[in-house]
Amino acid sequence: MKNDDSSKNADWTRRQILAALAASAGTAVAGVSQAKEIAKDPTKIPGAGASKLGARSNFESPERIAAFGVISGTPLHELHGTLTPSDLHFERHHAGIPSIDPGSHELLIHGLVERPLKLTLADLLRFPAVSRIAFLECSGNLQIDAGEETTPQNLCGLTSQSEWTGVALSTLLREVGLRPNAQWLLAEGSDAAVLSRSIPIEKAMDDAIVAYAQNGEALRPGQGYPIRLFLPGWEGNANVKWLRRIEVSDRAFMTREETSKYSEPIKGGTIRAFSFTMDARSVITTPTYPQSLERGWHEIRGLAWSGRGRITKVEVSVDGGRNWQDARLAGPVLTKAHTRFTLPWKWAGGTAELSSRATDETGYVQPTRRALIDARGAGSIPYHLNPIVSWLVEADGRMLYKAEPWG
Amino acid sequence: MKNDDSSKNADWTRRQILAALAASAGTAVAGVSQAKEIAKDPTKIPGAGASKLGARSNFESPERIAAFGVISGTPLHELHGTLTPSDLHFERHHAGIPSIDPGSHELLIHGLVERPLKLTLADLLRFPAVSRIAFLECSGNLQIDAGEETTPQNLCGLTSQSEWTGVALSTLLREVGLRPNAQWLLAEGSDAAVLSRSIPIEKAMDDAIVAYAQNGEALRPGQGYPIRLFLPGWEGNANVKWLRRIEVSDRAFMTREETSKYSEPIKGGTIRAFSFTMDARSVITTPTYPQSLERGWHEIRGLAWSGRGRITKVEVSVDGGRNWQDARLAGPVLTKAHTRFTLPWKWAGGTAELSSRATDETGYVQPTRRALIDARGAGSIPYHLNPIVSWLVEADGRMLYKAEPWG
Repeated sequence: MKNDDSSKNADWTRRQILAALAASAGTAVAGVSQAKEIAKDPTKIPGAGASKLGARSNFESPERIAAFGVISGTPLHELHGTLTPSDLHFERHHAGIPSIDPGSHELLIHGLVERPLKLTLADLLRFPAVSRIAFLECSGNLQIDAGEETTPQNLCGLTSQSEWTGVALSTLLREVGLRPNAQWLLAEGSDAAVLSRSIPIEKAMDDAIVAYAQNGEALRPGQGYPIRLFLPGWEGNANVKWLRRIEVSDRAFMTREETSKYSEPIKGGTIRAFSFTMDARSVITTPTYPQSLERGWHEIRGLAWSGRGRITKVEVSVDGGRNWQDARLAGPVLTKAHTRFTLPWKWAGGTAELSSRATDETGYVQPTRRALIDARGAGSIPYHLNPIVSWLVEADGRMLYKAEPWG
Repeated sequence: MKNDDSSKNADWTRRQILAALAASAGTAVAGVSQAKEIAKDPTKIPGAGASKLGARSNFESPERIAAFGVISGTPLHELHGTLTPSDLHFERHHAGIPSIDPGSHELLIHGLVERPLKLTLADLLRFPAVSRIAFLECSGNLQIDAGEETTPQNLCGLTSQSEWTGVALSTLLREVGLRPNAQWLLAEGSDAAVLSRSIPIEKAMDDAIVAYAQNGEALRPGQGYPIRLFLPGWEGNANVKWLRRIEVSDRAFMTREETSKYSEPIKGGTIRAFSFTMDARSVITTPTYPQSLERGWHEIRGLAWSGRGRITKVEVSVDGGRNWQDARLAGPVLTKAHTRFTLPWKWAGGTAELSSRATDETGYVQPTRRALIDARGAGSIPYHLNPIVSWLVEADGRMLYKAEPWG
């Protein structure tokens, strides 16, 4: 993850920024050599002692936006790097977060299998463990009627990233023995909604995980404690939390969450169902609303991700999409993972419009809003909407979201 | 980070474990097809609503060990994957944790530079940002007199891993302009110990970071809020927290922390100073004390890391070092980063002795305790001690640390 200046453009702008910052950032001082000449000096006061748990500074209070009792969005515009602290990971639940005793929780695997099994958490911990850093995104992650005073958190804060650890679902399915006609499985949660989704066997045998840990520690209850299904790159709701049952079948189960919900009308009256994969997307996280810019050099920073693999390119425009420059991608660029992109940029005053556009390793390019509306219809339910979005710089430096009606 | 079965040995043992687990783990059930037949059912109770911050389950209470008021150790044996939750990151401080207002904190860079600067946190946020996932380890990370009832946390919990974000120190030094005779810099903290260390310019210009974020959010106060020096792979105390001053010089400053402390006696009366780099090391994290084993298959898991680059191999012995097997390394294997290693293992009863041995990309092999004592002398101060350590399985399945006198 070391800085990679292999892009000539990034290298050029870095030299540029270094020269420019001498004038614009920092306060030049002449010959100050004694530490005590620095104004405020906490060196005269003994500090706090050791503790069992570290806490945030009193000067820091990042928070999720909690809406409708069932949605909590990550403050993307306040975060750095690629990981999301577990207490700021987005949540979406359909009947609240259950409180589950891990000592009595069991995962039942049955249906078209040779050897049905019930597994406790202790059992799962004895299987080979796998870990991966990956994003998780709600399929309804776009506020389509957002006004101009909208932060990235408000607009699309239902994506977060963690290191997930658990047992490969393929390991468990080999353990129970799939019957030849096994084609789908049902994943069922033990929340009060009994949220259930049908998952193709191909995904289950590919990279699905029965996860018990997130960022090193046990899952948080909002993330499915004690165990959840984790399907890298697939829409959030299919990653069933509080997982208690997997039933293998020869067909999809046509649950409520894949018929009345989580399916998208396509123009012309067709309904698209089982649209699991999250398409490539990007969003600038800073500078954005509610920042106010000072003239001079800034670094445009954002996140890009794709459920289909690695991000290969992020382009940034500062003129409303007329011209695009390649941003630097901070490595390691992992598959199905939030990738940080950066581009130095000098604001010399005047209006500007900042946009980003992601491309993934399949060659898929993040679409415009117009292309999405044309494909889905204006009355589109906001699932799987990943448009290029823009942020406006006003002449006085105030920043706003570029709000446009969906249609 | 997907499971990598490229090692034939790991592949073999995986097949073995899959067959064996059918008998040993999980409770076989016959024809259970209704969710409601599972005993405890939280689906009948509405769950908790959305919130601004997620919290841990009431059933989980990971804690650091807080010792002497100045040391907090990470519970390595309770964690999964490679990252450390920020509130469980180890701490070592010399006069407590200062409370610093980021609005008034400044970093002064002066000495043998063309343009001395004072930088606020707001200034630093405008520079190009870099992120990297890396370990941080205290140079005194071995309890040499540990008894047999010792956990990995007690033995060597002063190592943790985060994604660190900040400004490359090289960027700041190019900004101020190094004079030709610049060879060292002093990094000074604003804690009550005014902890100060001399850092060679080569490291500063290589991969050093002035970090302001950890795992996505602002540094925690125990980690140096609002800014710290981060020196990938180098001993913890040189990564000066609460950084307020960098003075560039033509020589080392010979501070207290590099003369009376953080230097190691070598056999024959010589003292080794400026021993910055943390050598390759590994520790099994599970199974270890205080676990008690049941017969059957387990996965031996641990962490390996090196301040000199990537881990290339971890070998595990279950017979006290007579025979060694290659463990699987979970990817991506990052440079100067905790790397998770795993090896399936069947305990069929009887005593056993579990050990791990790391090799890094320089070819360096983690030494035995005896080799270290021979090199450093028996009266060695416990800095930079990275011996192979072992865990004993008693005939009844109880696990103990293999305690041996240092000498």
